[in-house]
Amino acid sequence: MALRIGVIGAGRIGKVHAETLVTRVPGVQLIAVADVISAAAEELAARLHIPVATADYRDIIRDTSIDAIAICSATDTHSPIIIEAAQAGKQIFCEKPIDLNLARIDGALEAVEKARVKLQIGFNRRFDANYARVRQAIQTGEIGDLHMLHIISRDPAPPPISYIKVSGGIFLDMSIHDFDMARFLTGSDAVEIYTVAGVKVDPAIGDAGDVDTAFMVMKFVNGATVTIDNSRKAVYGYDQRVEAFGSGGSISTDNQYPNAATISTGQHIRRDLPLNFFMERYTASYENEMRAFVDAITNNKPVPVTGHDGRVPVVMGLAAKKSHVEGRPVRLNEIS
Amino acid sequence: MALRIGVIGAGRIGKVHAETLVTRVPGVQLIAVADVISAAAEELAARLHIPVATADYRDIIRDTSIDAIAICSATDTHSPIIIEAAQAGKQIFCEKPIDLNLARIDGALEAVEKARVKLQIGFNRRFDANYARVRQAIQTGEIGDLHMLHIISRDPAPPPISYIKVSGGIFLDMSIHDFDMARFLTGSDAVEIYTVAGVKVDPAIGDAGDVDTAFMVMKFVNGATVTIDNSRKAVYGYDQRVEAFGSGGSISTDNQYPNAATISTGQHIRRDLPLNFFMERYTASYENEMRAFVDAITNNKPVPVTGHDGRVPVVMGLAAKKSHVEGRPVRLNEIS
Amino acid sequence: MALRIGVIGAGRIGKVHAETLVTRVPGVQLIAVADVISAAAEELAARLHIPVATADYRDIIRDTSIDAIAICSATDTHSPIIIEAAQAGKQIFCEKPIDLNLARIDGALEAVEKARVKLQIGFNRRFDANYARVRQAIQTGEIGDLHMLHIISRDPAPPPISYIKVSGGIFLDMSIHDFDMARFLTGSDAVEIYTVAGVKVDPAIGDAGDVDTAFMVMKFVNGATVTIDNSRKAVYGYDQRVEAFGSGGSISTDNQYPNAATISTGQHIRRDLPLNFFMERYTASYENEMRAFVDAITNNKPVPVTGHDGRVPVVMGLAAKKSHVEGRPVRLNEIS
Amino acid sequence: MALRIGVIGAGRIGKVHAETLVTRVPGVQLIAVADVISAAAEELAARLHIPVATADYRDIIRDTSIDAIAICSATDTHSPIIIEAAQAGKQIFCEKPIDLNLARIDGALEAVEKARVKLQIGFNRRFDANYARVRQAIQTGEIGDLHMLHIISRDPAPPPISYIKVSGGIFLDMSIHDFDMARFLTGSDAVEIYTVAGVKVDPAIGDAGDVDTAFMVMKFVNGATVTIDNSRKAVYGYDQRVEAFGSGGSISTDNQYPNAATISTGQHIRRDLPLNFFMERYTASYENEMRAFVDAITNNKPVPVTGHDGRVPVVMGLAAKKSHVEGRPVRLNEIS
Repeated sequence: MALRIGVIGAGRIGKVHAETLVTRVPGVQLIAVADVISAAAEELAARLHIPVATADYRDIIRDTSIDAIAICSATDTHSPIIIEAAQAGKQIFCEKPIDLNLARIDGALEAVEKARVKLQIGFNRRFDANYARVRQAIQTGEIGDLHMLHIISRDPAPPPISYIKVSGGIFLDMSIHDFDMARFLTGSDAVEIYTVAGVKVDPAIGDAGDVDTAFMVMKFVNGATVTIDNSRKAVYGYDQRVEAFGSGGSISTDNQYPNAATISTGQHIRRDLPLNFFMERYTASYENEMRAFVDAITNNKPVPVTGHDGRVPVVMGLAAKKSHVEGRPVRLNEIS
Repeated sequence: MALRIGVIGAGRIGKVHAETLVTRVPGVQLIAVADVISAAAEELAARLHIPVATADYRDIIRDTSIDAIAICSATDTHSPIIIEAAQAGKQIFCEKPIDLNLARIDGALEAVEKARVKLQIGFNRRFDANYARVRQAIQTGEIGDLHMLHIISRDPAPPPISYIKVSGGIFLDMSIHDFDMARFLTGSDAVEIYTVAGVKVDPAIGDAGDVDTAFMVMKFVNGATVTIDNSRKAVYGYDQRVEAFGSGGSISTDNQYPNAATISTGQHIRRDLPLNFFMERYTASYENEMRAFVDAITNNKPVPVTGHDGRVPVVMGLAAKKSHVEGRPVRLNEIS
Repeated sequence: MALRIGVIGAGRIGKVHAETLVTRVPGVQLIAVADVISAAAEELAARLHIPVATADYRDIIRDTSIDAIAICSATDTHSPIIIEAAQAGKQIFCEKPIDLNLARIDGALEAVEKARVKLQIGFNRRFDANYARVRQAIQTGEIGDLHMLHIISRDPAPPPISYIKVSGGIFLDMSIHDFDMARFLTGSDAVEIYTVAGVKVDPAIGDAGDVDTAFMVMKFVNGATVTIDNSRKAVYGYDQRVEAFGSGGSISTDNQYPNAATISTGQHIRRDLPLNFFMERYTASYENEMRAFVDAITNNKPVPVTGHDGRVPVVMGLAAKKSHVEGRPVRLNEIS
Repeated sequence: MALRIGVIGAGRIGKVHAETLVTRVPGVQLIAVADVISAAAEELAARLHIPVATADYRDIIRDTSIDAIAICSATDTHSPIIIEAAQAGKQIFCEKPIDLNLARIDGALEAVEKARVKLQIGFNRRFDANYARVRQAIQTGEIGDLHMLHIISRDPAPPPISYIKVSGGIFLDMSIHDFDMARFLTGSDAVEIYTVAGVKVDPAIGDAGDVDTAFMVMKFVNGATVTIDNSRKAVYGYDQRVEAFGSGGSISTDNQYPNAATISTGQHIRRDLPLNFFMERYTASYENEMRAFVDAITNNKPVPVTGHDGRVPVVMGLAAKKSHVEGRPVRLNEIS
């Protein structure tokens, strides 16, 4: 019988997951969608033939015919919804970050553990073919022992200042994906982080108390040195690449392009710009992560991205921020 | 209201179109599937929740609630089904080739014209992003006037000998895609074809009366020289590339790969093999062509690949074969 | 003791060889330079500290202290100088083509054979690292049995009309390099050539009795199909590439660039244009061929490019031209 | 009149410069070569027809007919030879590093200044086409304001332990090139360096008191963040690349390869390994730097790499080492 699921939050990412569940994931039925803006929930329900639309996510949690939920609402609602859903025995998929506050994260993870439900965190990039190939090369020894890992992660344009003010800043809304990627690719954990960061793209970001350009170098438990290069603005588009270097060789990935054409003119040899942003670049990964969630629930397997995996990058983000503020390497165990 | 469609033929390509219609094309309902092997129809219907499964395609043609059909059955059934479907007022999508016999093709096209229904031929590669980009470069003058067009089209492995015996041979089952591509990219038509071909891959293909390696050079009406390089077997996988050269520059496309990773070892710098065959390589194009068909019917637009577009490549295939047999350039108007 | 050499012809290619001999080839002394324009000979001699400059090449041939000569004068002087030099016992390096007339070529080759001197023809591209790598791949079986070979050879701009009028035309002044490349890479010989050609670049070239865009497809003795794509004008620069396809794989070469930088901007991903013309693109090959000549003479080895190797591409050029004029495949044995 | 020059040191780099001066640089005469191992000097003199060979470099300094010297001897002899040569009025080219001791460097630079002679330091990579192109992109604003610069610099194999013991270690014998590159490309100077380093390649390097894998992140005066990734061993060969990222785009360079061929087989798509080490990779840069030196002397221009340019990277190397030892960011002004 098909898994019955409800989506909480009908914003950008909620729509992506709803469409994926309806058109691309077998063995699942999308039963209900909730959004505080009821028109958003209704519009989405109408378009995708979802039976129930509601403004109150509790309608979904109370519906005993629903097996699982996908939490795509605002970050500060994640923890309370996780706790309520766990208590109601729902299986849970939750967008990253779980929360910006470690105590609240810990509360949510405790509720999940107590209720013995599953919780998968939405680090979708783990399900991208490029990163999966790099992880394979590292984990199978194809490039020997890992010495260095460089992660380049640059957005095509900064988000609105209003978003930056509530997102937790670059280390918690943007680098967090790369912290997770560092853990996923290395299969190890950070010990210490040193950050060099500043405002290069837009002074308004500085005025909002954030930086827009950040570089982090980290010592990992397995002895590898890992770096992250973040920018809020790469004029040529979404720049998402990694290079891993080891005793047996290296592996590096290129960006993804809308086509594989090269054009030669009297001026230069050129190709079109890469896929512009995460919706296009990571389309397949959103589909894959949702398939993996449905598979984990249906077949009672461990989820591929756990609550712990959701917690650690928040710790790393806090350490990176502290390093930036204090101008010195910060050990992760300095973060409570 | 959703367009109601029936699929005739539940083999490899029938399955692709059925899955696409069910999971990836909005505004359409897949109502029925037919296959002479009734188990095949039933299995597909069960998996995709298609209401009707039948061994007799006439059940679909007689069903007046069905607006359109997709013909995915054996080539020699295409013409008669087109004629019957046209007479029943159905809108028609038909896999290539329409037929191997020009008189039978003409009969089918007449029936379509008389019934004033639409007929779209399944040259899916026109809907691939790479080829679309090349066409754009040629048609918009981005590379000036077109002088040369080279089409490389090599399969990873030959089909079974049993298929080769009934397919019409390499010029009609394989080159036919490239003949269409030549017309699509140039926006022009061939005048003359010269073929150099032979048996390089498997003597059994020669015993079956076919060749497995073919090169064609063609003069086009617009003055361009167009070449096609076909092989039944490229050990590194499906090789599908074009290069267009003109007075203002050139454009060339690369293959599509499962990932964009480059691995450096003590032996060499390498990447994984390209996507292996047409189902993977052209996934998006199958989806796009079916969307275009549904759009043409629903919104009463011209279909993007007409019956004439389906007929001409058959003429080209016959000319290419004649050139190979007679060892001389053959003009298309030599083919009745 | 150093080999003593004289250069006949102080034009563009004569200067290249003289500079190479003086600054880049050990074991050789450039003793004399001749040019009908005596100022040209003197200027070159002064710049490179060459002891003798003369307007009369016979001064070099008569100089018994000189072991070898490099013939870099006008094409119609090649045959008579070869004959005189051979009779004087000189070792001979001669630029391509030996002559445009087969009877005159044969006369020169007979004189060489009779005098038992060595004659090396200046097909420098054989000494380029890219083509050497392709030949290695073909000859060692790295790509299995050769099925197809595609040669792309496009100039950045046409030569002056005055040159086209005396050069023998595109098939004998430009394609000739590619005919040699086809023989060098395949290690085989052409049986039949079919040409499609026209005037696309400049009507004045047509008025001069030549074409500027030519495509040739050839059947080779070893069963391979070989093609050549020639254009007098590629706006993006000198385009020199090959692709070989065989039962075990393929090998293809890219152009050479002034740098390996990729630039990403808000418009596109691009690189600078390739090295613009043969002097820059083939610098190393000129050096390598002269080293090979000096080595062959000094150590009494066979020369790597023989008089026969100089004759055959002229036959191929005449066959290609005949095919273009008559619009049919021409067998090489139709050329006397 | 030709510039008269003497080379001091007939080891690996001395041979490179001597050959370059003899065969590739116009307007210069190599008059003398000195080496403490007189057989080395004599062998080189014989091979290149250099008139004078000596075991005592002072023979060259005392020779008033000699205008300039190239110092290619052991590092600890650089400073005293510079001082003596300057006092003798010689123009000076000196290999990097000037010295490992800042006080000795300062003594040498004072002598040069007092004598009003020119001193050019052998940072040859500045004369490589790839790096020149990157500098151009940064300095002309082609990529806007510089935000990040990543330098990858990995050797194919570690030097002998005996060398490591006297070289000053990785920061002073290897990173020094990259420190110079950082200054050359940015046109700016470092303020602070943070180093993460360790022994990954060979424990014997650790036993010798050095590290073999080092990562440095630096804050520059112009606001850019610059990183250097050094390894003593990349199994795939000499890895020398940079990526610069700015407000208007990015520029990145690839390695240099012996050929531009791509080979496709049943296993993968591959190319041959890059040029293996600095002699092959930077051949042209050695030639260009020597031409620039001869030009600066002959035409009384400023040298392109000054004594100051030779001093600063030593300061950076000492700061990087201190950062590694103390585990904290070190400001350059902490180094006396």
